[in-house]
Amino acid sequence: MTMPATQAANQDDYPTRLPQEQWLERKDPTVWGRWSPEAPLTRAETNAFDKNGFIVLNGVFSPAEIAALQHESAGMRSGETKLAPENVITEPGSDEVRTVFRLDEQNALFDRLARDKRIAGRVSFLLGDDVYLHQSRLNYKPGFTGKEFYWHSDFETWHAEDGMPRMRAISASVLLTDNDALNGPLMLMPGSHRTFVACAGETPEDNHKTSLKRQEIGVPSQDSLTKMAQQFGVDYAAGRAGTVILFDCNTLHGSNGNITPFPRSNAFFVYNAWSNRVGAPYAAKAPRPAFLSSRDPQAPLVIESGKLA
Amino acid sequence: MTMPATQAANQDDYPTRLPQEQWLERKDPTVWGRWSPEAPLTRAETNAFDKNGFIVLNGVFSPAEIAALQHESAGMRSGETKLAPENVITEPGSDEVRTVFRLDEQNALFDRLARDKRIAGRVSFLLGDDVYLHQSRLNYKPGFTGKEFYWHSDFETWHAEDGMPRMRAISASVLLTDNDALNGPLMLMPGSHRTFVACAGETPEDNHKTSLKRQEIGVPSQDSLTKMAQQFGVDYAAGRAGTVILFDCNTLHGSNGNITPFPRSNAFFVYNAWSNRVGAPYAAKAPRPAFLSSRDPQAPLVIESGKLA
Repeated sequence: MTMPATQAANQDDYPTRLPQEQWLERKDPTVWGRWSPEAPLTRAETNAFDKNGFIVLNGVFSPAEIAALQHESAGMRSGETKLAPENVITEPGSDEVRTVFRLDEQNALFDRLARDKRIAGRVSFLLGDDVYLHQSRLNYKPGFTGKEFYWHSDFETWHAEDGMPRMRAISASVLLTDNDALNGPLMLMPGSHRTFVACAGETPEDNHKTSLKRQEIGVPSQDSLTKMAQQFGVDYAAGRAGTVILFDCNTLHGSNGNITPFPRSNAFFVYNAWSNRVGAPYAAKAPRPAFLSSRDPQAPLVIESGKLA
Repeated sequence: MTMPATQAANQDDYPTRLPQEQWLERKDPTVWGRWSPEAPLTRAETNAFDKNGFIVLNGVFSPAEIAALQHESAGMRSGETKLAPENVITEPGSDEVRTVFRLDEQNALFDRLARDKRIAGRVSFLLGDDVYLHQSRLNYKPGFTGKEFYWHSDFETWHAEDGMPRMRAISASVLLTDNDALNGPLMLMPGSHRTFVACAGETPEDNHKTSLKRQEIGVPSQDSLTKMAQQFGVDYAAGRAGTVILFDCNTLHGSNGNITPFPRSNAFFVYNAWSNRVGAPYAAKAPRPAFLSSRDPQAPLVIESGKLA
């Protein structure tokens, strides 16, 4: 395999983990597909995604489909369904399940969900390419003690530590519980995806072992975040169970903790363009493990239509 | 001074810190005053307070008044204004000011604010009595790292640890910064003020030394909170700087942490009815110190009219 041209050090459009933080202009489109009346998103939806770096699609999955997914999810969380331990992250100081990785490999219904036309078809249109899963997981944020997740751009980490060449990936969050402003929803800075914040600081070895619980390297400074928030504002994405949120790989996002009694759970899929497959990391000695960053996909996803349940 | 009849152990309407948690009906009115067209709140506002246990009053203080208060607040936080160290609580692990107690004694403008007719006059009407300050403080929740404050009823602590006989006290929060759903606003369970959750567990000595940072005794169980949230829902109180939130002493409330860059600051006054002055604690060996619980007020507040600035 020859190394893609983008990976030659002198051609890196998104250098990061530098001595000093820098703001760089995005060098890639946000919407790679060409809109037509046959597109799986309306023109307004497509433009909103382009402008804001995210879109909230309500009522994508029916109550019956959500009930079926919740049933599978409960089985995985309760320990009833056997999971490979390396795919499970627990809450700090307890064995309560916070995240199940490689969700598509652990469970047939979630694999089917990942390949559903209502998500993967739309993402494939936005990325103008076939897609595969760079990462997939089930997130579970309990009530009362749900922890915050600090502001970050996913692409910064995927580029630096996973070797993702270009900004041509989209995350989809499928809400399995109702989510409102108060139980730790996804917060985003609309428009922030057009600026790449090259972060300060070298990548420590095995950074992912701590960064999954608390990220310290690869996040913008408080000064940058304040300026971005003043410029773009802070919005949040919420909705009933069955809602799908699509967001660009470079949109700054995070979430507050949750002391309400209402837990929050979602299935989370990162779709990368087939032409944008990962290579050697741009700013780390070794790539993160495969449960965080699929290193060797065999073929693009086979997208399927029809109801899940 | 003779002991009020309510303090005889066999007449305590609100026993708490018991071997087992219990739900008891509130034995006191929420609105003690009698509404008339001359009342300082509309009939609808008065009824809403009675029903929900809180009310949000927008635009009570003008931008010029808020600017003057913010100026005084900045002086106290920066250390420019000398403060007695026992009145200041800092963030865990730093010397950043989180709370300034005895706000009315530290600063003339905040003293005037506490006695303003637009707050104290309305509270005095709702309580149907003269009022005095049981506690007063300036709260400062920074951006990025603002910590959550767990669910509690203030009255439970004030009764158990301060010796407040009846539910006849109201807290007022004056927003000095804009506050929305995302930067850790006050969350409340509307209607929860009608139930007294008698809490499980004996009061440890000097409980306030830890409970101000993280309360563990005197809070309802997760089971109770879940039932209450299902019954009453969770609402939040937000608004522009200059908004005033009034809430009953027994309304369950808390707040999430705040990772947004937007700090949150408010002046906080607890008004107690003059006839409801504190005595010996109902469920603690010694009362909390005077900066948390004014033990010996000399006279009711003198309420003043007119602009602050």
